[in-house]
Amino acid sequence: MSDEEYMNYALLLAEKGVGYVNPNPYVGAVIVKDGKIIGQGWHEKYGSWHAERNALADCLKSPEGGTLYVTLEPCCHHGKTPPCTDAILQSGIKKVVIGCLDPNPLIAGKGAALLRKAGLEVITGVSEDKCQKLNEVFFHYIQTHTPYVVMKYAMTMDGKIATASGDSKWITGSSARENVHRSRNKYSSIMVGVGTVITDNPSLTCRIPGGRNPIRIICDTDLNTPLDSTVITTAKEVRTIIATACTCSNRQKPYLTYGCEILLVNRYENYIDLKHLMTELAKRGIDSILLEGGSALNFSALKSRIVNKVQGYIAPKLFGGEQSKSPIGGTGIQEVTNCFTLKNRTLTWFDEDVLVEGEVDYTCLQE
Amino acid sequence: MSDEEYMNYALLLAEKGVGYVNPNPYVGAVIVKDGKIIGQGWHEKYGSWHAERNALADCLKSPEGGTLYVTLEPCCHHGKTPPCTDAILQSGIKKVVIGCLDPNPLIAGKGAALLRKAGLEVITGVSEDKCQKLNEVFFHYIQTHTPYVVMKYAMTMDGKIATASGDSKWITGSSARENVHRSRNKYSSIMVGVGTVITDNPSLTCRIPGGRNPIRIICDTDLNTPLDSTVITTAKEVRTIIATACTCSNRQKPYLTYGCEILLVNRYENYIDLKHLMTELAKRGIDSILLEGGSALNFSALKSRIVNKVQGYIAPKLFGGEQSKSPIGGTGIQEVTNCFTLKNRTLTWFDEDVLVEGEVDYTCLQE
Repeated sequence: MSDEEYMNYALLLAEKGVGYVNPNPYVGAVIVKDGKIIGQGWHEKYGSWHAERNALADCLKSPEGGTLYVTLEPCCHHGKTPPCTDAILQSGIKKVVIGCLDPNPLIAGKGAALLRKAGLEVITGVSEDKCQKLNEVFFHYIQTHTPYVVMKYAMTMDGKIATASGDSKWITGSSARENVHRSRNKYSSIMVGVGTVITDNPSLTCRIPGGRNPIRIICDTDLNTPLDSTVITTAKEVRTIIATACTCSNRQKPYLTYGCEILLVNRYENYIDLKHLMTELAKRGIDSILLEGGSALNFSALKSRIVNKVQGYIAPKLFGGEQSKSPIGGTGIQEVTNCFTLKNRTLTWFDEDVLVEGEVDYTCLQE
Repeated sequence: MSDEEYMNYALLLAEKGVGYVNPNPYVGAVIVKDGKIIGQGWHEKYGSWHAERNALADCLKSPEGGTLYVTLEPCCHHGKTPPCTDAILQSGIKKVVIGCLDPNPLIAGKGAALLRKAGLEVITGVSEDKCQKLNEVFFHYIQTHTPYVVMKYAMTMDGKIATASGDSKWITGSSARENVHRSRNKYSSIMVGVGTVITDNPSLTCRIPGGRNPIRIICDTDLNTPLDSTVITTAKEVRTIIATACTCSNRQKPYLTYGCEILLVNRYENYIDLKHLMTELAKRGIDSILLEGGSALNFSALKSRIVNKVQGYIAPKLFGGEQSKSPIGGTGIQEVTNCFTLKNRTLTWFDEDVLVEGEVDYTCLQE
């Protein structure tokens, strides 16, 4: 097997951490000796052992003289666990193949340098794109100190998220909807506007076997979320944060009683300041947000430039309707040349629906 | 080479007729003898020789004992040219391989039967799907006596056909727009609503080298098309039909003076009766329509069930805007379960834009 093949296998192991390790990165590791895999591991849970140590512990025979394949540069600092470089040096491993370097300023090439200095052969950049893509959330979070925001919506082929009468169940088929629940398991939080709570009364939970619920974030500038809505009445079961600019403690009190957290953020143009909110959420360890609209919040988020990726599910349906809502509302942009664009797009089919994913490019925007 | 390979080559020949043969079908033919192609031809122009005769005329040596591959069943009736079956029998060809049978009631299996009866070996249904798909317009026209209608629009990834201020130049890139001009060359007519003429003042011509302009059809219930609009002032250069319910000859006169044709159609719910219009257009030999909106006409066309295919170009752009138009307007449908659906979808990339094509399925509709 080639270096790339071992690394791709390590990537598959890394993905097993999805839903368990935020805000840590996904990491997989494989130890190879005499052309055979003798140990494998991944970062399984936030706060627990890193992939390298799990792979070493998995070895049934001595890893001495072997090669370690690891998707992300080994750490060389004391965090919740001791440095992985120590464990590698102690193991007698002679060669380390690294997928991509860790942008965390505490590491950032220091791990690889330390191993080289100790006399190990170190190769970096094997399947680098895939390794970086796997940790797009972590890389963004560690470098910008804000959550990675994914705007998700489902629309018809004529750009509608509901019929003229407001019916939206369902735009997409069960396979696409199941993938949304995988996203809810993957990203650490889910965010909607108060309008969506009032209209749809959603639970915003993750409904796949073994999945974990994302933290719920309700953007509610003036505290208008109905107290009998599902997100409020179940706040003791699923962590729920109300982001508001309303400072009135009498208004806040009932939400606190139900177990919600109130996150006070600045006001910006009659809405909460989403950039301020991002900073506050990151401080609370929230590395990623699945933004599930509605259309007004979606536009505010784009305008505030907090959106990193768009996930648009497109169903083979046509609703028509001058008054039917489309995924992004608000005032919109005026000139085509000033529009938001999507780059690095991918298409994935879920039965009859297609998911278009792309990273938001703000460079077209003039202000 | 296999039968399929010869037939696929004949299909490529057939496509050379695009833009020249409406309302006739596209047909390609290849004559093979001793494992070599000795003659090839296609239906080149409406009213001229059929593909079979062109292929026979192309032979440098005698086709006697050879095999004819033809994408569509040879005709056995006198139309603008004498029956192709006569020419085949006279040529001494011993075997005929047919892509698909001709649904034209004047032929419909009779051509194949006649050849078989004369002692030739006849094989049908080779690359049948491709041969039928190539002539979806002809098949529809000959069987329903109405034009094949293709609804075309270009929208952003958030379902907008213009910004909030109405800017729409350009949603898609040059490669996608060039393909639209290929469609204008392919389909015999182009149809818009009077609103589009007022807003955009389009010329609706085909701007590719060697292309031919489609016949322009303006849906204008009450004759409100401005007399100084491009489609009117150039009506002597490009055939222009105004479909209207306005019977006032004084109102009609100036359009006639400019060289437009007035097509009187019934009124239906404050709009022209599109079903009636389709029948009238078919009577005038119009086999196909490229419907280029706007959103009100698009919905009327869907509601009237005259749309056969949707071509939606999707650009990697986001406009936002509660007030920004989306491709299909009107009243829209009320319940998701009653929506229009698209079947047999295909995706084609044009640089950064993707074209989604699908046939409209009306079976979901309840009335």
